Amino acid sequence: MAIQKIESHVAAQWFAGNSEGSKLVNPTTEEVVATASTDGIDYAAALEFARKEGGAALRKLTFAQRGELLQQMSDALQAERENLIESAIANGGCTRGDAKFDVDGAIGVLAYYARSGSKMGDVRVLPDGDGLKLSRSPRFWGQHVWLPRRGVAVLINAFNFPAWGFAEKAACAILGGMPVVTKPATATALTSYLCTKAIVDAAGLPAGVYSFIGGRPGDMLDHLGPQDLLSFTGSAATGQTLRRTESVIQNSVPVNVEADSLNASVLGSDVEVGSDAWDLFIKEVTREMTQKTGQKCTAVRRIIVPQDRVDDVIEALGEGLDDIQIGNPTLREARMGPLASKAQLRDVKAGLAQLLEDTDVVYGDPEAAIEGPGIEAGKGYFHPKLLLKARDAHGAKYVHNLEVFGPMATICAYGGEAEEASTLVNKGMGGLVASVYTDSNDFAETMMMESSAFHGRLYFGSGKILDHAMGPGLVLPQCVHGGPGRAGGGEELGGMRGVEHFMQRTAIQGARGMVQSITGTRESK
Amino acid sequence: MAIQKIESHVAAQWFAGNSEGSKLVNPTTEEVVATASTDGIDYAAALEFARKEGGAALRKLTFAQRGELLQQMSDALQAERENLIESAIANGGCTRGDAKFDVDGAIGVLAYYARSGSKMGDVRVLPDGDGLKLSRSPRFWGQHVWLPRRGVAVLINAFNFPAWGFAEKAACAILGGMPVVTKPATATALTSYLCTKAIVDAAGLPAGVYSFIGGRPGDMLDHLGPQDLLSFTGSAATGQTLRRTESVIQNSVPVNVEADSLNASVLGSDVEVGSDAWDLFIKEVTREMTQKTGQKCTAVRRIIVPQDRVDDVIEALGEGLDDIQIGNPTLREARMGPLASKAQLRDVKAGLAQLLEDTDVVYGDPEAAIEGPGIEAGKGYFHPKLLLKARDAHGAKYVHNLEVFGPMATICAYGGEAEEASTLVNKGMGGLVASVYTDSNDFAETMMMESSAFHGRLYFGSGKILDHAMGPGLVLPQCVHGGPGRAGGGEELGGMRGVEHFMQRTAIQGARGMVQSITGTRESK
Repeated sequence: MAIQKIESHVAAQWFAGNSEGSKLVNPTTEEVVATASTDGIDYAAALEFARKEGGAALRKLTFAQRGELLQQMSDALQAERENLIESAIANGGCTRGDAKFDVDGAIGVLAYYARSGSKMGDVRVLPDGDGLKLSRSPRFWGQHVWLPRRGVAVLINAFNFPAWGFAEKAACAILGGMPVVTKPATATALTSYLCTKAIVDAAGLPAGVYSFIGGRPGDMLDHLGPQDLLSFTGSAATGQTLRRTESVIQNSVPVNVEADSLNASVLGSDVEVGSDAWDLFIKEVTREMTQKTGQKCTAVRRIIVPQDRVDDVIEALGEGLDDIQIGNPTLREARMGPLASKAQLRDVKAGLAQLLEDTDVVYGDPEAAIEGPGIEAGKGYFHPKLLLKARDAHGAKYVHNLEVFGPMATICAYGGEAEEASTLVNKGMGGLVASVYTDSNDFAETMMMESSAFHGRLYFGSGKILDHAMGPGLVLPQCVHGGPGRAGGGEELGGMRGVEHFMQRTAIQGARGMVQSITGTRESK
Repeated sequence: MAIQKIESHVAAQWFAGNSEGSKLVNPTTEEVVATASTDGIDYAAALEFARKEGGAALRKLTFAQRGELLQQMSDALQAERENLIESAIANGGCTRGDAKFDVDGAIGVLAYYARSGSKMGDVRVLPDGDGLKLSRSPRFWGQHVWLPRRGVAVLINAFNFPAWGFAEKAACAILGGMPVVTKPATATALTSYLCTKAIVDAAGLPAGVYSFIGGRPGDMLDHLGPQDLLSFTGSAATGQTLRRTESVIQNSVPVNVEADSLNASVLGSDVEVGSDAWDLFIKEVTREMTQKTGQKCTAVRRIIVPQDRVDDVIEALGEGLDDIQIGNPTLREARMGPLASKAQLRDVKAGLAQLLEDTDVVYGDPEAAIEGPGIEAGKGYFHPKLLLKARDAHGAKYVHNLEVFGPMATICAYGGEAEEASTLVNKGMGGLVASVYTDSNDFAETMMMESSAFHGRLYFGSGKILDHAMGPGLVLPQCVHGGPGRAGGGEELGGMRGVEHFMQRTAIQGARGMVQSITGTRESK
């Protein structure tokens, strides 16, 4: 395959960087597949073009019309679906299944918000709640409304979802009326670039609505202003750096961060070995440990298990993990590919060394040579599947604090009470999702009351949804995605909730007739 | 009056500081009225007590029960109302009207949220939106809920509203289930302290629900954790300092900032001199310039007037301002007292000097000696009422950027089109409220579409509400209060919207029956 040159798209023009740029590698073969340079981009001009041209164009459109743009974006990706999947296999080390998870997720989330826009119809003002009588007489009236922020939304995405990552943010921003500048992680930016090419060539967006920075972001963030917005997915450390940016602090720029998360999976003490809930637990935890080689923000990192079930769980998960064949992801028989980059492999190894201070290995061998179909000996950023067990679940130093972004998880034993399981879950200090496998409403209710505040989402697996559930790792556009504390304190998606983050909520007060007329909230007679 | 010693209330105990502390002054007479020291407070222990004891106690209560606590707080302030008003006159330089505005606001906002709790009833889970069918079959179900954050809400308030300022924040926090630690601005903390004494002595709150820091906050903010929350009202500069706090950044602590705001008041070009809308405009702008001696975050700072109405506006506002008698606020005939402190007087004078680079004085005399009933010559932090006019409304350097917190505002002329008025309004780069006086729905709609994104609230004054409107300066608990950009990017109040900021929104997923049971959202049959 020829080495591709990733370009940026700013101020409605393609821009090839002025330097050789970063090298993007196939993590299976270590061959260079693309280069990316952004040297020479005028970021101040790029952001201002988006604000002025893209913002004005979007604000003229109704929600339904913005939805049409999103459908065109979704269609443009659908038309290039095979190429996008191929690129994610080549540049991301994804299996075909992993690549589809990302690419189809992008196509789907754009289509979901396209439908949302269509349902909202030909209006530009989104009312929030009911009208309010503000004085004794009904003449003085209030109505909250959402209208688009008048800046640009800068979207910085993680390496693990080069397609879905930008799409889920861009869908909400564009439906909300904000133009976007999207910047993928450089290591796997080929797929994001090909998405952008598809969109620019086919989706027919107004100039300035969608811009793309194909590599390092230079001084872009120094140009953020008080109507702009920054949305980031990636490490907690980088999220903190973004929050310290002077332009962000001085202009009260909203920063949505989705960061580290030690997602826990709890086996309820009511669940018998071999029951439907048990089977769901084993099936889903196995998948959430290995899908995308454990490189999902929603992957299971901690498995909270009743003390008297620990051996059964190790045995059953071991059988599940045995079925996950490591291999060259271009091959159909491979169910788990390499990590996405050399840097990721280094970080995973370093993290594992710390986890091993707290834990024993109960499945797999950290030192084993990697073998599998299509793997060239000594090549590629592969890592073995591992199951660890904490020696002291409550006292562990790293297990609850260090997100190791690879195919591994740690079993933590608890006595059987939901309160104790919650205490362990909450030691993660804020996460994206916790999953609880139980058929007991009481167990579930206690977990919800004690652990909701630490999570953006709680997933309850039970026998009743054995054939209907989708697992805790799947992020649906209908439900919010994000979490407090370590997880960054952000929130995305959740239907219109995610769109509202790109808008300003304003209370409109005045004479009832005037307020109802300008906000489009007059009752039909 | 004897000098009072302000104590703190932490870990359910009164604490007198270990040093002499700061001196609080009567700004009319410059006499010391109180001292405040926090030296020796163990802030880590204080916050932890609030989290552990206060948080647990509140989470056991239903919304209705938390509402009862708020009603008891409101009643406790009502019982001490006269003393509180006296203290605001003595320590804040408030006229009796100004003092009532603050104290009755506190009593009212607590009572408003008490009623909200009562209406929500005996439940502890607040559903958000409808249930969601998440798979083709209706078995896999989703429901968003709000539950209390499990930390402590640290509330830092401004000097101008020592009663309402803590009450509007504490009402939302406590109804949401979070314990509070409230810290007033030291200069006018006497009223906040007396509110605290009333509440501690009479309201019967569970231990740890309400704590009070009567002076400097020491290293308190270094102890914030990932479930805590920081809410601040004050200067933009201090708000930025709070956002830079390492504990805040590292723990993704939500920071709600309500800061500087160059609130504009626009006279529509359709409004004829002498019409009802005109009368409302003149009456309300006069009040918003002088109430609390211009020391309101919602005070009018910029008056946007059609070019051909400027002389009429200067004449009419001048007559209105003539009626505002400066004087010793203990006297009934005084309608405007001094600024609240020597530091405020210094800041106002410095700010005025900068404004005068852009403007001419069209009413009042910045250098005039202050005279009025009960004013001792040369004593007190009085400042004259001033009306300024920008020489170049669009090009002015300070008029749109510098909030001068005293009894003055600047007239900016515009050609008559709503688009141009909006451009001038938006130069404030984010504010709490803009007011627009017009009887034209078209003018109002353009202002809303162009200026909403820069404001938390837009107030439309028109002839139809001449006798019903409350003016842009009144912050109602039903409507959101806050604004983007320079105004800090925060949001408070707005009914349940303000309460939700103290809670975590979580998507609950699972079998339909289980989700509906634990979230309390089962449909009645």
